[in-house]
Amino acid sequence: MAKIAICGYGVVGSGVAEVMAENADSIARNAAEQVSVKYILDRRDFPDDPYEDLIVHDFSQIENDPEVSIVVEVMGGVGAAYEFTKRALMAGKSVVTSNKELVAAHGHELIAIAKKKNLNYLFEASVGGGIPIIRPITQCLTANKLDEVYGILNGTTNYILTEMRQNDASFEDALRQDQENGFAEADPTADIDGIDAARKICILSDLCFGKHMNPEDIKAEGIRGVTSADVEYAKRLGCKIKLLGRGLRTGHETATAYVSPHLVSNSSLLSNVDGVMNGIVVHGNALGDTMFYGAGAGKRPTASAVVADVIDAVKHTHARKYLDWDDAPDGYFTDSAYVPSRWYVRANTSLQQIGWAFGKVNFVTYTGAAEDEYAFATEVYDEISLRKLTGGMNLRSLFRILD
Amino acid sequence: MAKIAICGYGVVGSGVAEVMAENADSIARNAAEQVSVKYILDRRDFPDDPYEDLIVHDFSQIENDPEVSIVVEVMGGVGAAYEFTKRALMAGKSVVTSNKELVAAHGHELIAIAKKKNLNYLFEASVGGGIPIIRPITQCLTANKLDEVYGILNGTTNYILTEMRQNDASFEDALRQDQENGFAEADPTADIDGIDAARKICILSDLCFGKHMNPEDIKAEGIRGVTSADVEYAKRLGCKIKLLGRGLRTGHETATAYVSPHLVSNSSLLSNVDGVMNGIVVHGNALGDTMFYGAGAGKRPTASAVVADVIDAVKHTHARKYLDWDDAPDGYFTDSAYVPSRWYVRANTSLQQIGWAFGKVNFVTYTGAAEDEYAFATEVYDEISLRKLTGGMNLRSLFRILD
Repeated sequence: MAKIAICGYGVVGSGVAEVMAENADSIARNAAEQVSVKYILDRRDFPDDPYEDLIVHDFSQIENDPEVSIVVEVMGGVGAAYEFTKRALMAGKSVVTSNKELVAAHGHELIAIAKKKNLNYLFEASVGGGIPIIRPITQCLTANKLDEVYGILNGTTNYILTEMRQNDASFEDALRQDQENGFAEADPTADIDGIDAARKICILSDLCFGKHMNPEDIKAEGIRGVTSADVEYAKRLGCKIKLLGRGLRTGHETATAYVSPHLVSNSSLLSNVDGVMNGIVVHGNALGDTMFYGAGAGKRPTASAVVADVIDAVKHTHARKYLDWDDAPDGYFTDSAYVPSRWYVRANTSLQQIGWAFGKVNFVTYTGAAEDEYAFATEVYDEISLRKLTGGMNLRSLFRILD
Repeated sequence: MAKIAICGYGVVGSGVAEVMAENADSIARNAAEQVSVKYILDRRDFPDDPYEDLIVHDFSQIENDPEVSIVVEVMGGVGAAYEFTKRALMAGKSVVTSNKELVAAHGHELIAIAKKKNLNYLFEASVGGGIPIIRPITQCLTANKLDEVYGILNGTTNYILTEMRQNDASFEDALRQDQENGFAEADPTADIDGIDAARKICILSDLCFGKHMNPEDIKAEGIRGVTSADVEYAKRLGCKIKLLGRGLRTGHETATAYVSPHLVSNSSLLSNVDGVMNGIVVHGNALGDTMFYGAGAGKRPTASAVVADVIDAVKHTHARKYLDWDDAPDGYFTDSAYVPSRWYVRANTSLQQIGWAFGKVNFVTYTGAAEDEYAFATEVYDEISLRKLTGGMNLRSLFRILD
């Protein structure tokens, strides 16, 4: 019988308790022993909750109970979560988490502690919610040199963009609707501005390329700059606008990552990843492209990934999972502005100026488009060159096209 | 240093040798030790091949060499492959395979032998080529009760259907082209008639539902009955025709599986799985739908999965992977004819007869359609009811619609 403690009884924490109870039989079969929740740590009390009796307010109660072999940290943030994770590991308990902020910022350090103590620090739920992605990268694609990873990593922004396209919703209405559906946070800044996606693409890049990438180093552009006009122009280009996180090797010992809206062709798989769903593409030198799709957030999908990690931790009490990356050497991280792509440009400028800058381009328009602007798709440029060429234009939107 | 033997030096076997050499450094890092090929078993000689010196013709040389800890069986078939797998396991060597025919037919028995000998029998490459699917199901979705699995499991038929739709190719031309590209077998019967997909959906059902399903029990309908007319009608219904394998629980202790062409809506992810690519959807009660996409066949993608299993076997020399299913109890397997769905019907019949049978239906036509037939989509029926309703009609095509 394995006993676990859940730290944080919010959406994910209650999902973990729910899935543990509902699927107890199959979980026991998969873990080869019974797994039960002994404590739930939260500041609040939960009178009349089915797990009311398990609630504790002091982490040391968990820390000092030798019966607890696994701590599930689903509190979020890098304050108490960071402290409790270290204390749990030092006390000889494996830790399972969905906390992307903590993994992206301190994952390397926490894995090192786990390693030293011969424990596991597992974080499948930190990227892509319930989608299996961390384990496939670290266990199934091991025969490959991985050179690129990208995808739709944030459900809230994908929901907003989908609503803008399918139902002509405004950005504000779509966001409000997502909040009402219980997906978007009350303060959606981390989602809308690409910060959440930046943390996730850093974790994916860490695992794919083997070196630590700092979320604070990478350029993260969210979706505040995406207008209904952009959505319409994109349709005429046979594309949908999607917020992508993207990490890629840029040389033998260099890599970069960034987050920004992209025009994605309707014929690509990612274009049908709609609503709150996530989709992640990994490219390896033997396999080519592979994609993973599913619910990137939400109570039960995220709990699905957390509980799978709990089962793995139970099965590997005395065998560490290989899951690690190194510190990045100086010069490892390069500026994403040097990554070439085609571009979608919307600008208040003249045909003459566009001609001078780009020669022939692929113009698009639609009924009702503003009369004082042009929209077009360019050939392949890096961002530095593109900014020079568009220097004299009054730019309204500038997004990469994913080919 | 781990030493392996490759049995079968065909497309996959040579891919394994190639990837092992090309990615030797990263493989050693992932396996935490060097991994090298000591023997390659084949009936033929390969003068001037870079691995000429490793070729052997007698399996007992491998069997009796205690240095070889892992045997890679990529011969195919259930004759020598079956015998060598058993002998390798009895000799204390783990076995890695891409042989879906063998796994579907005798996987349960071979896993049991491996279990008894505390060895691994791994077969990630047997389904979906390079796509990580076996390990995600058995390790990442363990918190879920899985109730359905379906997908595009055969690259050759998907290539043919894609060519028929995109380039108005005939079935015969598309098949010939796929053979010229090196994908389709010289004798494509197992692909075209759904036998290959049947083996794969059985393996997936075995793992998802935990009980053995016999490929010989399930209905497998291939794509010989799909015509250009069907492709055109499907377009007008907003769909593409895809050959799907599908397994689902049909009750508390019952399940079914089948292979047949389906009309798949353009808005679904599977509809953009084109050419030789595969896509597999798994539904779990906590996670909902998740999809896995990638190259389902081919030398290097399949080798990618085989070598990942080799790495896993090296890392788990003394720890068995949990990967198993039970014999099915009597009555476990139910007839797929009872599975309800909407249907696409093409028939030489009268409007009156269609009206009598179905009431209102959704008719489609296109310029150039045959004048002596009607095509339409029905409401939801199981196949038994549907066959009764269409009993008086001269049926030309009858495919399920995936909703």
